[in-house]
Amino acid sequence: MRYRLYYWSAIPGRGEPIRLALEDAGAPYDDVARLPASQGGGDAAVARVLTAKNGLRPFAPPVLEAGSLRLAQAAHILHWLAPRIGRAPAGERARLAAHQIQLTITDLWAEVHDTHHPIAVGLYYEDQKAEAKRRAQHLRDERLPKFLGWFEHAVKGPYVFGRTASYVDLSLFQTIAGLRYAFPRAMNALARTLPKLEALHDRVRERPRLAAYLASDRRLAFNQDGIFRHYDELDAPLARSRRSRSS
Amino acid sequence: MRYRLYYWSAIPGRGEPIRLALEDAGAPYDDVARLPASQGGGDAAVARVLTAKNGLRPFAPPVLEAGSLRLAQAAHILHWLAPRIGRAPAGERARLAAHQIQLTITDLWAEVHDTHHPIAVGLYYEDQKAEAKRRAQHLRDERLPKFLGWFEHAVKGPYVFGRTASYVDLSLFQTIAGLRYAFPRAMNALARTLPKLEALHDRVRERPRLAAYLASDRRLAFNQDGIFRHYDELDAPLARSRRSRSS
Repeated sequence: MRYRLYYWSAIPGRGEPIRLALEDAGAPYDDVARLPASQGGGDAAVARVLTAKNGLRPFAPPVLEAGSLRLAQAAHILHWLAPRIGRAPAGERARLAAHQIQLTITDLWAEVHDTHHPIAVGLYYEDQKAEAKRRAQHLRDERLPKFLGWFEHAVKGPYVFGRTASYVDLSLFQTIAGLRYAFPRAMNALARTLPKLEALHDRVRERPRLAAYLASDRRLAFNQDGIFRHYDELDAPLARSRRSRSS
Repeated sequence: MRYRLYYWSAIPGRGEPIRLALEDAGAPYDDVARLPASQGGGDAAVARVLTAKNGLRPFAPPVLEAGSLRLAQAAHILHWLAPRIGRAPAGERARLAAHQIQLTITDLWAEVHDTHHPIAVGLYYEDQKAEAKRRAQHLRDERLPKFLGWFEHAVKGPYVFGRTASYVDLSLFQTIAGLRYAFPRAMNALARTLPKLEALHDRVRERPRLAAYLASDRRLAFNQDGIFRHYDELDAPLARSRRSRSS
């Protein structure tokens, strides 16, 4: 089975957790928007799949096609895909837990996105910068400790489900990497509270297929158009969080 | 199997889509927080399940327990529960589509929540009222037409999947009811563009078990502590949306 992934060509975004799973598994896939237009690629291909006439039209990318099946919603795609490419944990209970964790990662990413777009996705950052500063402070001081502390607690072995990596580990790697890009000072302040996640991040990065992918031009760098963006004024070393967490 | 649902006792919130599925199916369940404290009820029971020592600790309610299985994340709970109580659509493809739609309902609810809490869940509405007005305008004018138009497009028969109701229909009923409570003027302006959803809402409300539930004291009314809140200053008749949608 050769999979077809549809996601915007210039940002890692919500497509990247799916790319990481496919790459780590060595599964064959086309990252359709990154194919040349002559082969049906480009962002126009994403726009086309969003207006598909057959079946349920996706609300937003990422979209995965497998034969005649078309799925949207990143966590949903991974829940379906991972067992087929050997990147789901073993057993039904663990697969249910994996999806639950992935949906919580999804929730965190939505909150991270809203730090730079607290008012509207349709407005520029510059038009909601004052609100962004307020929201980012609460993300750093309240939400990051809560989410990351919960993920830290969920890690059972070297990986979340023990000795074998799953798509959840790959998504947590991307989460930590993205947060370090966006909020380096806040993440530096939190690092000592997250020893398992820090180790997991490094362990994932050194997996042979992942390392090869990360060094390739298939890997898209974090940038100022994605979910994880670095605006210096939205980052701070978390001085307030220690106070609020101990109160 | 008698299910145990854990959700805050004073708001319909993200617990209600699960209550609606259980009620419409006539499935036996305890709404644990609404039991007397002498029977282990009260909101303290929700707080206890969030700090459970065994297995994956839930990040947030709702939580469903079925025997020794414990699940969190409303859409995840419904994807697991619905086939067991006869409220999933028939066939694997339709069940995947149902989960995809439910996750999109989840996304809309998060955006609705953020209209009254655009900066931080930990702050009062009054402390983020100016931002709330800006965000609510964009929800009304851009996001509601986009989400609701997508749901409208997804309805194939009298119900989303044709002649038989599924949990997705029950959740769309709650979505329409909640939006009418929160944004009556905006929803009134949108009604003519949503004939299938309007009919689906009425059809669900008249289902015998649902009608009995809605008339009972088990049904919690929308109020100013839930996801769907009515603040008059956040509602408007959508005059701007027609302009932006046609541009």
